[in-house]
Amino acid sequence: MFSLSTPISSEGGHASFQNNVPDPATSGKELPTFKFELEKSQGRVIDGSYGKEATVEQLLISKAIAGVSMRMQPGVMRELHWHATAAEWAYVTEGLVRTTVIDPAGGSETNDFAPGDVWYFPRGHGHVIQTLGDKPCHFILVFDNGYFSEFGTFSITDWLGHAPKALLAKNFGLSLDAFDGIPKEEVYFAKGPIPPAIAPTPLQGWKTPALTHKYSLLSQKPFEVFSGGVEWRVDGSQFPISTTMTGVVLDMDPGALRELHWHPNASEWQYVLSGAFRVTLFGSHGRWREETLGQGDVGYIPQGFGHSIENVGAGKARILVVFNSGHYQTIDASQWIAGNSADVLATNFSQPASFFETFPRKDVFITK
Amino acid sequence: MFSLSTPISSEGGHASFQNNVPDPATSGKELPTFKFELEKSQGRVIDGSYGKEATVEQLLISKAIAGVSMRMQPGVMRELHWHATAAEWAYVTEGLVRTTVIDPAGGSETNDFAPGDVWYFPRGHGHVIQTLGDKPCHFILVFDNGYFSEFGTFSITDWLGHAPKALLAKNFGLSLDAFDGIPKEEVYFAKGPIPPAIAPTPLQGWKTPALTHKYSLLSQKPFEVFSGGVEWRVDGSQFPISTTMTGVVLDMDPGALRELHWHPNASEWQYVLSGAFRVTLFGSHGRWREETLGQGDVGYIPQGFGHSIENVGAGKARILVVFNSGHYQTIDASQWIAGNSADVLATNFSQPASFFETFPRKDVFITK
Amino acid sequence: MFSLSTPISSEGGHASFQNNVPDPATSGKELPTFKFELEKSQGRVIDGSYGKEATVEQLLISKAIAGVSMRMQPGVMRELHWHATAAEWAYVTEGLVRTTVIDPAGGSETNDFAPGDVWYFPRGHGHVIQTLGDKPCHFILVFDNGYFSEFGTFSITDWLGHAPKALLAKNFGLSLDAFDGIPKEEVYFAKGPIPPAIAPTPLQGWKTPALTHKYSLLSQKPFEVFSGGVEWRVDGSQFPISTTMTGVVLDMDPGALRELHWHPNASEWQYVLSGAFRVTLFGSHGRWREETLGQGDVGYIPQGFGHSIENVGAGKARILVVFNSGHYQTIDASQWIAGNSADVLATNFSQPASFFETFPRKDVFITK
Repeated sequence: MFSLSTPISSEGGHASFQNNVPDPATSGKELPTFKFELEKSQGRVIDGSYGKEATVEQLLISKAIAGVSMRMQPGVMRELHWHATAAEWAYVTEGLVRTTVIDPAGGSETNDFAPGDVWYFPRGHGHVIQTLGDKPCHFILVFDNGYFSEFGTFSITDWLGHAPKALLAKNFGLSLDAFDGIPKEEVYFAKGPIPPAIAPTPLQGWKTPALTHKYSLLSQKPFEVFSGGVEWRVDGSQFPISTTMTGVVLDMDPGALRELHWHPNASEWQYVLSGAFRVTLFGSHGRWREETLGQGDVGYIPQGFGHSIENVGAGKARILVVFNSGHYQTIDASQWIAGNSADVLATNFSQPASFFETFPRKDVFITK
Repeated sequence: MFSLSTPISSEGGHASFQNNVPDPATSGKELPTFKFELEKSQGRVIDGSYGKEATVEQLLISKAIAGVSMRMQPGVMRELHWHATAAEWAYVTEGLVRTTVIDPAGGSETNDFAPGDVWYFPRGHGHVIQTLGDKPCHFILVFDNGYFSEFGTFSITDWLGHAPKALLAKNFGLSLDAFDGIPKEEVYFAKGPIPPAIAPTPLQGWKTPALTHKYSLLSQKPFEVFSGGVEWRVDGSQFPISTTMTGVVLDMDPGALRELHWHPNASEWQYVLSGAFRVTLFGSHGRWREETLGQGDVGYIPQGFGHSIENVGAGKARILVVFNSGHYQTIDASQWIAGNSADVLATNFSQPASFFETFPRKDVFITK
Repeated sequence: MFSLSTPISSEGGHASFQNNVPDPATSGKELPTFKFELEKSQGRVIDGSYGKEATVEQLLISKAIAGVSMRMQPGVMRELHWHATAAEWAYVTEGLVRTTVIDPAGGSETNDFAPGDVWYFPRGHGHVIQTLGDKPCHFILVFDNGYFSEFGTFSITDWLGHAPKALLAKNFGLSLDAFDGIPKEEVYFAKGPIPPAIAPTPLQGWKTPALTHKYSLLSQKPFEVFSGGVEWRVDGSQFPISTTMTGVVLDMDPGALRELHWHPNASEWQYVLSGAFRVTLFGSHGRWREETLGQGDVGYIPQGFGHSIENVGAGKARILVVFNSGHYQTIDASQWIAGNSADVLATNFSQPASFFETFPRKDVFITK
């Protein structure tokens, strides 16, 4: 008796426990590295197209989020596949890209992407990615699971290539020998003619899903312009399908600082698009670590850890930051301090109250 | 600053990480078996009534879902008990069954079930199951936790039998010696007279819960009729209390195929009601496995893994399929392919585009 | 095809599995202790102020919930800090307390608390706790994570004390030497003048969050009054910010019993405010354990386990009970039995039906 009328899922009770068991990667006396030189890694290279991974294999601390840098030559596609263990969020950095994605309601959507555009594919939804035009393309894929890679990617040639021909024939209503010529092993990157400028009609015709998978992030008015930098941001409130991830692009002037802050509800995955950044990480109990990230390097901040990002290069710099939550949240040090009275701060720091009267009265976010 | 106004649970951030740590059972170079001969196992037998289990103990791969085959003689009840670690979904195959379940709002519901009927009891809700009439009954119980069994079932005689009499007397306002005769150990199956045809009134009178625990699945018009088979389906959209599970019954003609597909949001537990099926499992990285399941055998498909189900027996066959999500989702190979253009498929498979013009233009689901 | 239109999070499918893996602490043949003498433990003592912890370190079974007893001298504050791994629920037992908390929307709230008042801070939200007035204060903190402590608490002096001065100067727009005097290590308890009776204005002015962090539990009319005791209760339905926790205070007469019951959706953390209680724990498979808890002792009940609480002292007694769910649910033995007919119970217990006609016809909850 006396319960609420709202039904509760069976998982309710233990969720906070299971999600909060300490991570051995961050339980030592020293913080581990949170940097991986993704673009300098070897990756998987096929005829000038490549995929380079940052998962827990390459960067132990990155338990909640993984990423891939992918570059494809003209006429190349990353073949039809799905991820059994993660949703996929992507940011295009170079060239033109076309994707087609199927959803469980039977809709499929084809979209074309230019630099600054974003896509989101929910966990398990099948998709294909093609280079458009006569120039290579490059994009960053981000997954809401640091373990997504090993046995997490299911390709259509790997599947159909291992199925008996009789099964395929029955499945698709075709003759037994119809499948004689299909690949027997995973193709991964397939090569063909350059796709037509206008996307061809799918076999089933156009059947648009309820929610689009595309968001043109850098075409939007910036989320906020600061003295020292510009922020673009997209979470589930602008891009409703993106229920498990949020993305931010920061343009920062030389010397500009994304101030000390933390995210109460998400871990953070960083990729340097241009320039050089010093990232600090605070892990409680006096644990402090700094890394300098150059172009193509990856950084990672566990949920709730304090951190800052500073442009330490000579010119403007740009960084991509992706979170494993569809709700963006940040608490910035300046705002936290401004939310307290000078009296409280004076006692906390054993300083005169007048010292704190000189502090910012509102959130700083980016400064220089 | 800059957060959404929607509150977010404290578990938000790490959920995808913790749920996605690789399962050792499916991390090897070969896929493990996904078949268990449930009805051929010994189980727990008492005077001709039995319960036979398929949990991770019997079928290592089945981490997310367990099942029990239970047969009870006339006059027998599976005594009052609850499951601390799982919700219970059930399908009646033979005879008549009565259940009474208590919910945290104090309501109790008594329902009578015939073959083809389904029940759902949320995690932790106390219930009792009785054979009705003078014939045995048989039903399949499915739990949304592969580990539900060991220390997961709490029986009333086990509880009250270990409580001091003074505590019981005070609890129920009765004399100390009132409890002299109750069992001291778990009864499990209790035997008594055949229950009356009309359910007797509970001590508190009839006090109906907001949501019913019963759904007559096979009495419904089929969800869909195919050339080759018939599908009945019940998820939370038809049966609102069933927030964590979905059930499907498939009737398939000889040779009929439930085509290659996967479920992006759920694992799958199978029980063969009649006939024989060949089930294929695709686990990425070239991992492929087939099992032939006969009547009373159990199969298991991890979330996101590709699979198919084919009637390989001489006659019609029926299979029960249960998922650990209240939202049914499938992506079928034919629909995925139909959601792409012939051009894309031609490049992916190194085949002429004309080949793909011969493929189905819509979802196949079941064919023969 | 055939999916629901409602989007589902990527975590859906495996949640029940991961949350239900057996806990080694409760998987043995005997139940482990579920009692810890918190107030008799040493804790961290600084100049007469202290914090004493009950986490999995001190009480192995308490995986889902931890607690702290904190006593602070006049003029002392528990400095600005946040918890990366848990939400915080608190109950004031003595003295006056002031808190200031920041939220991700930039609002900060200052509240004053007297005995019987409760606060809730969502996971990761920064806060400070001050003694008010010239007397010590004492309060019980409860966290929705048994592992919250180690590397889970981030203090502002620990953070700023390890940051380079140049970074701090840039962050706050101040001179390099402005930070010469701040502490270099974590302060934990800071001491200063007794705070003014009226809370001073924060630097940013008053900027109230959408949801308050304070609930005056014992100032409310009791949730229910029984022969034998009184219950106050607060969950998310009365205190909307408290989405992950529920609190109950029970006043019980000598000999009174909070009857045999279980919580299907939550684990339970107990702290004896006064008097002495015998707590029983039923863990299935014949596992039964009793503990007697005195003032300042902690008890713990895993989700779904049967238990009872009895005042075994000479006088009235009070216990604080906190759950790791924002939805309160209980199933009481008397109500469960009353929800069944005498016929069913007679067969279950091999007793005459007339015996069960003497049982309570409704929920007992508390009796004596």
